[in-house]
Order: sequence, then structure tokens, then C-alpha cells
Amino acid sequence: MINIIVAGPRGKMGYEAIKMINKEENFRLVACLDRKNNGKTLKEVDGLPDLDVPIYENAEECFQAVDSADVLVELTIPEVGYLHTKTAIQHNIRPVVGTTGFNSEQLEELDELLTSKNIGGIIAPNFAIGAVLMMKFSQMAAKYLPDVEIIEKHHDNKLDAPSGTAVKTAEMIRETREPKSQGHPNETETITGARGAELDGMRIHSLRLPGLVAHQEVIFGGPGQTLSIKHDSLNRASFMDGVRFSIERVFEIDGLVYGLEQLL
Amino acid sequence: MINIIVAGPRGKMGYEAIKMINKEENFRLVACLDRKNNGKTLKEVDGLPDLDVPIYENAEECFQAVDSADVLVELTIPEVGYLHTKTAIQHNIRPVVGTTGFNSEQLEELDELLTSKNIGGIIAPNFAIGAVLMMKFSQMAAKYLPDVEIIEKHHDNKLDAPSGTAVKTAEMIRETREPKSQGHPNETETITGARGAELDGMRIHSLRLPGLVAHQEVIFGGPGQTLSIKHDSLNRASFMDGVRFSIERVFEIDGLVYGLEQLL
Amino acid sequence: MINIIVAGPRGKMGYEAIKMINKEENFRLVACLDRKNNGKTLKEVDGLPDLDVPIYENAEECFQAVDSADVLVELTIPEVGYLHTKTAIQHNIRPVVGTTGFNSEQLEELDELLTSKNIGGIIAPNFAIGAVLMMKFSQMAAKYLPDVEIIEKHHDNKLDAPSGTAVKTAEMIRETREPKSQGHPNETETITGARGAELDGMRIHSLRLPGLVAHQEVIFGGPGQTLSIKHDSLNRASFMDGVRFSIERVFEIDGLVYGLEQLL
Amino acid sequence: MINIIVAGPRGKMGYEAIKMINKEENFRLVACLDRKNNGKTLKEVDGLPDLDVPIYENAEECFQAVDSADVLVELTIPEVGYLHTKTAIQHNIRPVVGTTGFNSEQLEELDELLTSKNIGGIIAPNFAIGAVLMMKFSQMAAKYLPDVEIIEKHHDNKLDAPSGTAVKTAEMIRETREPKSQGHPNETETITGARGAELDGMRIHSLRLPGLVAHQEVIFGGPGQTLSIKHDSLNRASFMDGVRFSIERVFEIDGLVYGLEQLL
Repeated sequence: MINIIVAGPRGKMGYEAIKMINKEENFRLVACLDRKNNGKTLKEVDGLPDLDVPIYENAEECFQAVDSADVLVELTIPEVGYLHTKTAIQHNIRPVVGTTGFNSEQLEELDELLTSKNIGGIIAPNFAIGAVLMMKFSQMAAKYLPDVEIIEKHHDNKLDAPSGTAVKTAEMIRETREPKSQGHPNETETITGARGAELDGMRIHSLRLPGLVAHQEVIFGGPGQTLSIKHDSLNRASFMDGVRFSIERVFEIDGLVYGLEQLL
Repeated sequence: MINIIVAGPRGKMGYEAIKMINKEENFRLVACLDRKNNGKTLKEVDGLPDLDVPIYENAEECFQAVDSADVLVELTIPEVGYLHTKTAIQHNIRPVVGTTGFNSEQLEELDELLTSKNIGGIIAPNFAIGAVLMMKFSQMAAKYLPDVEIIEKHHDNKLDAPSGTAVKTAEMIRETREPKSQGHPNETETITGARGAELDGMRIHSLRLPGLVAHQEVIFGGPGQTLSIKHDSLNRASFMDGVRFSIERVFEIDGLVYGLEQLL
Repeated sequence: MINIIVAGPRGKMGYEAIKMINKEENFRLVACLDRKNNGKTLKEVDGLPDLDVPIYENAEECFQAVDSADVLVELTIPEVGYLHTKTAIQHNIRPVVGTTGFNSEQLEELDELLTSKNIGGIIAPNFAIGAVLMMKFSQMAAKYLPDVEIIEKHHDNKLDAPSGTAVKTAEMIRETREPKSQGHPNETETITGARGAELDGMRIHSLRLPGLVAHQEVIFGGPGQTLSIKHDSLNRASFMDGVRFSIERVFEIDGLVYGLEQLL
Repeated sequence: MINIIVAGPRGKMGYEAIKMINKEENFRLVACLDRKNNGKTLKEVDGLPDLDVPIYENAEECFQAVDSADVLVELTIPEVGYLHTKTAIQHNIRPVVGTTGFNSEQLEELDELLTSKNIGGIIAPNFAIGAVLMMKFSQMAAKYLPDVEIIEKHHDNKLDAPSGTAVKTAEMIRETREPKSQGHPNETETITGARGAELDGMRIHSLRLPGLVAHQEVIFGGPGQTLSIKHDSLNRASFMDGVRFSIERVFEIDGLVYGLEQLL
């Protein structure tokens, strides 16, 4: 049985995490860290699951009170997330962190602290295993099929194009792909933008339509064949496979692992 | 039995047309019009099918000699195609024309000539029935789902982007779609071109990769749903369904029909 | 301004309909018909939108009290839906009905009643315009490309395969498609079921996976080309485009129209 | 510069291989092994490329005469392929073999012979790098997303269903996927075959249509997400990337490698 504390129970990710932990036979939720509601239990707070689990506002106090905890699932914001994570390690509690935005000094410090305690910790900017596999496979495929374009599709409320995942994918591909210019050297756009955004010779195309959620396809072409790797995400439930996987794997590692792709 | 003359037997389209006509039970190839090889038969010319069919260089002479002809399948270039077509009508031979580039005066003149002869003629810029259906369905769908983007994918030897078919599709959609701006009003491109080419608020994305041939997908989005219409073309055989269909349908119409979509 | 009564406000469809009507400038929700909550307003009932709209349990009473109503949106169950619909027509209120399961006698009676009142009514088993267009386009395409297979994908809690929509699509295609046997005459399955379900020579394939919602693709093949028509449905919001469209179109028709495809 | 001998120059694969070798700057075709045409050059044989490269019928004789050869690309049939391969190794020529059908004793013998000569050899049942990557990625993904279905699509002249590649993919997935039953435990087929072929709980669906060539999609589902890996093959050119890759990599290995996936 793995005893787990969730930080950020009122966020969308935290809420899904609590539901997931509650369903898993080998997981037990032993406490929550919240910005408010100190001293209450989950079931006493509107909108939270009907569970008899205590809430703490102070990390130090929480980890002292709940001394059986094995893992902290940290899903808040960088400002408090860093303190939560550091304090957890000091109490020999392994951190599984979805909060992004720690700087490199902080990452180094956490790694050293984990190493000195002989335990592992995981920080993952993206917990959707499918998305992480898509990026990893794309990176592998680009070694053999260097001609590649990315199509990403999102709902039409998204403000930025291309998506962060598309740019991240292209950057990961760049590490293995031999640089080359794609398309015909004399190709021309009769309407500007037709050939999409360019990143190191690769092309990224961003669609925005109602009825879409979050989708990405990476297409590789070679003589006589194409290979496509596609991820479709419906909702935040897609992150929970990665959170569960991290809770289990964090016991098998030493020090800090950054990015789920390092573990797959 | 429909007796057919093919103009342009040495072109790729002409070659496919001859093969198709030869396979159909109700079609008979009676002659070919070519820029050279006058007086020979097909089988006497290198690279042409092994058929005992006479070749003529002069249209007038051909139509006089082969007075059983019902249909001219015209697959050359506009310069000679116009004369072939006009001469055919004067001999009461129905034209099925894949040659594009006639001007509006010429189209009008051909229409009048056909009407005066009480016969029909078809000019089709695109004989691929699947592509024409894709455009027609897109035009119909845009009435109900006005948010639409187009992805077209071609081999990386193609010079222009977007493709002619993509632009034609957007123009056909424009006729039925209520004008609207798509995407979030404040959306921004962090890399130029990500949101593709813009045509009247619609977005067109052009991919160019080895291993692709000619593909287009039109995607409509509405709350909670998307509708996609996709055409994949492998080779020129895709045009032959449309040529055969036109040969059969040209007997049922009067005057000139421009575009296969008028008949589907 | 169109004044609307919604029957079934506590159902998922009813709830979405109320939200949609509330957003549309030309629509006004004037009352709801519910199995309970008589005399309350929507905002007084837990889980319903915060609107000051009266609820009635009895249809006759409702239509007499709210004499400005133009349209009844009926989203309950066949047992009460039939009475609601009939009573509405008697009060010159046009019905837009998502309830399915009326028998042919009932449909005939409703049609006669509408005709005698010189008003229109719409019954639609499927309000998702995208799905209805997919079926209609498939029916049209099968005339020219008779080789067709259907892939439908649903979440893995679905019990029956193939889906009702897939069977309906095949039946609609059958009306226009010239009967033919597909595939190679000597094809064999080395593992039973590989070639899918057979309906009149067409093949239907049913996928069931977590992470899917409701998806269908109809694929037509001809020499050198394929045409695919695909519908992806995320949630019940997809029905609201069809409900809105029906509310507007019901004023332009006489008698009963069964199926949205008759109006597209 | 790598000097290469091609066995099977008149086959479709051999023909493509010769064209590819001729284009590559670092490759040189030095001879061909053929069942006939001994003593001629390629350009003297109808239908072969216009190259001044000698043809031999006997392997021993060929390898003695052309002592500069580095690699044998063997693309014939198992009966003669085995002798070609073995003889090549005896002459310190590295074999790259597309011929399948060697038995396990033969494979073992070739491996020992290669090892004793301190050189490498590659036997690849499938040279299409995209297809091999698809299978390899599917095997990796199944560890994390065990719910999986396969759709394979081929032209309607194909006799067997499912395809060999689909079965091979499922077998490779089986090695990493924790066994589980998929779909709803109470699901039922209202038309037999809807849920496809079953292999160890996974489902395989085979489509056969004109206009298709060779396509396969492997779809993984998890809560809130799906991951799809798709390969589309147009023609035999798709194998040449793998042949070229093997010619280059065979210098870096010792002994026999069976399957391109071992090298990617």
C-alpha cells in the first residue's frame, strides 16, 4: 500500500488525482495540502469528494502529523510547489510533481537533496503518457525519416499558435534529425502562410475549430511511405495514467527525473 | 455501343483513357487524334497500347473519315483542344473535355453550337469523382457548419501552395458559407504562418513530404462535433471513373455543362 | 423573437437545450414541462440554470397559461412525449421532437393534425447535424463509388456492435448503391471476423477503446482514389446545432418532417 | 565507397535497389547475380537500367571475379538465396538479405559463419523502415496503454485477412502487453464479425477497397486519450530506405541480425 498526500485538491488536476488514487487498490490518500480549509476533511469542503481525509495548510505541519506518507503528489503552482516539494523530501517523502516553472537552480537543489536522502523524485511538465510517447517516438523516427511536418488541432478558444506541445515536439525531433531543408527548393506560397510555421526546416500547422479539444499528428515522409504518430486528448483524465505510473515508478529511481519520457 | 475518339493518346491521361475504354464492354475506341503519327495505328507507335486503331492529325479529316463516332474525349492542350471540340460538335460528336483554359467567350460559343445541334457536351477541370464530391459536400456542409479549415498534402516536388484544388474548394465553400471570422479574436502566432493561409476567414494548410501523392481533408467544426471530408488520390486512374461517367451522361444533357459537380 | 417551451429540463439534452436557447438572441425560453416541480421556476430547482422561467407538470395547463409559445422542444420519453406533442399542436405550437419511439400510427396522426392546423413539426432521431450530413453524403457518394466500408469507434462501455448509426448509414447507402459483392471473390479470413460485419456486401468494423467517445468514418474506394467522410462527436453539445436549426426551420414547413436529413 | 552486388536484378525489388544504389554517391554497383543472362551487362538486357555492369549466374564465380565487393544485396527466393548468402560470407562479403523463408538451422549456420569471419549480416523480412518503426513503437506503447486495436487497409485484390503485418504487429505487442480482455465484458455483436478478429484480446480489422494500397493504423486507448501509429505504403520505393540503411549499418555489426527492428 502506498500512502499519498495530494497538494492542490481543489484544482482540476488535483480533483482527478484524488478520484484516481481512491480507485486504485494499492493507493491510499492520507492527507491533502491546500491553501485554505486547514483542519477540515475533504468531505466538509464543497465540491470535493466525500472522503474522510484531513486537510492541512502548512506543509511542515502536515508531513509531521501524517508520518506514514510515502509520496507527495504536488499539483499547485510553482511559488508554493517548490516549498512543498523541498519540505516533503526533508521528511523522506518522494515527490511526484506536475507543477512546472521551477528554475534550474531549484531543480539542482532538489536533485541534491533527493540524492542525499537516497530517494527518488519526478517532475513532469506533461503527465499524458500518450503525448509523451508521441514526442519520444517522433524523436526516434526522425533519425530515419528526416522529412517531417506537424499538425496540431485545438478548440478555437486557444490563443497561441503553434501549441507548446508542437514546439516541444519539434525541439525534441531537432536533437536527432539531421538538419535539412524540406519541400521543393523553389516552392512558393500563393497565399501567405500556406506552408505553416517553420522551425529548423520542419513545418507546423495549427488548426482552431469548435468541436476540437487537443490533438496532434506528427507525419514523417520517405520515398513511397509515410509514418504518422497521433495523440488525441479529450480531458484531464488523460493525465492520470501518467500520475499513477509516476507514483509507482518513483520508488525505483534515485535523485530527480525531469520529464516522463526519461522513464518510458 | 458508344464509339469514341480520343485526342491526346500519348499523354498520361490519354493513355489511361484508352486503357479504360478498351476494358468497358459498351465503349469502342474508333480513332485517335494526335499531333503526329498521321496514318499509323496505335500499335505502330512506341509506348502506345497494342490496338489496331487509326491515328489522325487533322480533326476535320478524322471526323469525316470516322463517321460512326459518338463522343470525342479531348485530353490535349487549350490551343488545339478548342478547335478539336468545336469541329467535333459540327460533326454532331459530343465532346467530353478534360482540357482546361478555354476563355468565357469560347465556352459561350461552344454552348450555343451544342444547343443549335441539340446535343450535349461536358468540360471538366477535374475528372476525379471523389475530389468533385469532396468539394460539393464541403459546399453543402458549410451552410450548417461555417467554421472550416482545409489541409492539403502533396509530394514535395509540388511548387505552389496552396494547391489549386484547395483554393477551388474554399471558393466553392464561400458561395454557401455565411462570412465569419474564425478562431479566437485575440489569437496570435508565436511562429509566423502557424495558422496557415487565409481565404475569407477560412484557413488552408499545405504539407509537402516525400511519400505523399495528392490528398485533401476539409474539416468542419461545431460545438461538440467535427465533420471531415477527405479525398486521397493515388494516380491518374482516379480520373477514369469521371471520364467514363461523363461519356455515359453526355447523352442525357443539352448544351454545355461545365464541371462534373453539376452532374453529380 | 421565437418563444419556446422545453419539455424535459432535467435531462442532459434538456439542460443543454436551455443553455443554447438562453444564448441565442432570437430565442426566448418561456416555460418548461417537467414530470415534477410544478409551480416552481427553474432557478428554484437544484441543478437547473438560474432562470426565472416557470415549470408546469401538465401540458394542457402549460400551453393555456403560456399562450405566447411558438415552439415546443420535446426531449423526454415516448410515453409522455407523444401526449406533449399532440397537445402542443392542438394549441398551434410547432413541435421539435428529439424523443424517438413513436409508432407509425402515431406519426401519421401527428402529421394529419399538423396539416389540419397548417403548421409544421419536426421529429429527429439524431440532432447532430454533422452525423446527419455524414449519412446523407454517404448516400450520395455511393451512387458513384459503390465500394464502401464503415469504421465506427466508441468508448469501451458500449454494449452493442455495430452502432445504430453505422447500421442506419449502411441502410441509407443501400438505397442508392447498386448491389455488388466487395473484396476479392476468393478472400479468406485466417482469423474469424477480420473482414468485419457484413450488410448487403458492405463491411462494418467496430472499435471499442477507452479514450474514444463516438466516431464514425465511411470510406469509399475507386480506382486510384478513396473518399472518406468522418464524424467525431465529443458530447451532447453536438446536438444543439440541430435543435437550433430545427427551431428555425419548423416555421417554413407544413406537416410532419421525420429526420433532419430531409431538411439539409 | 561501398561496392555492391545485387542478386535478383529483374525482380521488382531488385530493380528498385539498382536505381537506389545508382543514385547514392557512396554506393557503387559492381555486379549482379541473375538466374540467366550470364556474361551480359545490365544494359544489354531488356527492361533493365542502362548500366555497364556485368551479370553472373554462378555465385562462386561472381564473387571470385569481382573481388572488390563489400556487400551482397540478396533479393531472390529462399532456394537460391541461401546459397548466395553463404557463398558471399565465405568471400568476406556482408549479406543484406530481403529473401525470407530461411529455416532456423540455416539462420544459425549463417550466424556462425559470419561470426567466424568477424563480419556482420542482416536479414530483414520487411525493409520498409516506416512499417518496422510502427511495429516497434506499438510494442513500446503497449506497456503503458494495453488497450489496443489494429486497422489494416489494403487493395481489394488481397486474398488473406488479416494481413501478415497486422498479425506480426499483434504478436510483437503481445510480448510487452499485460494480457487483458478488452471492451465491455457483456458486449454483443448484432451482426457477426463487427468487433473484428481477436488475437489475445486485441482486435484486428481488415478493410479491402479499390484505391487503397497498404496501410495500417495501431490505436491505443486510455482514459481521456488515444495514441495512434499509422503507416501508409505506396509502392516498393518504401523498401529502399531500409535497404540503404542496412547497407550502411552492416559494417557496424558482428554476426547475424534478424529484423530491422533490432537496429532501429
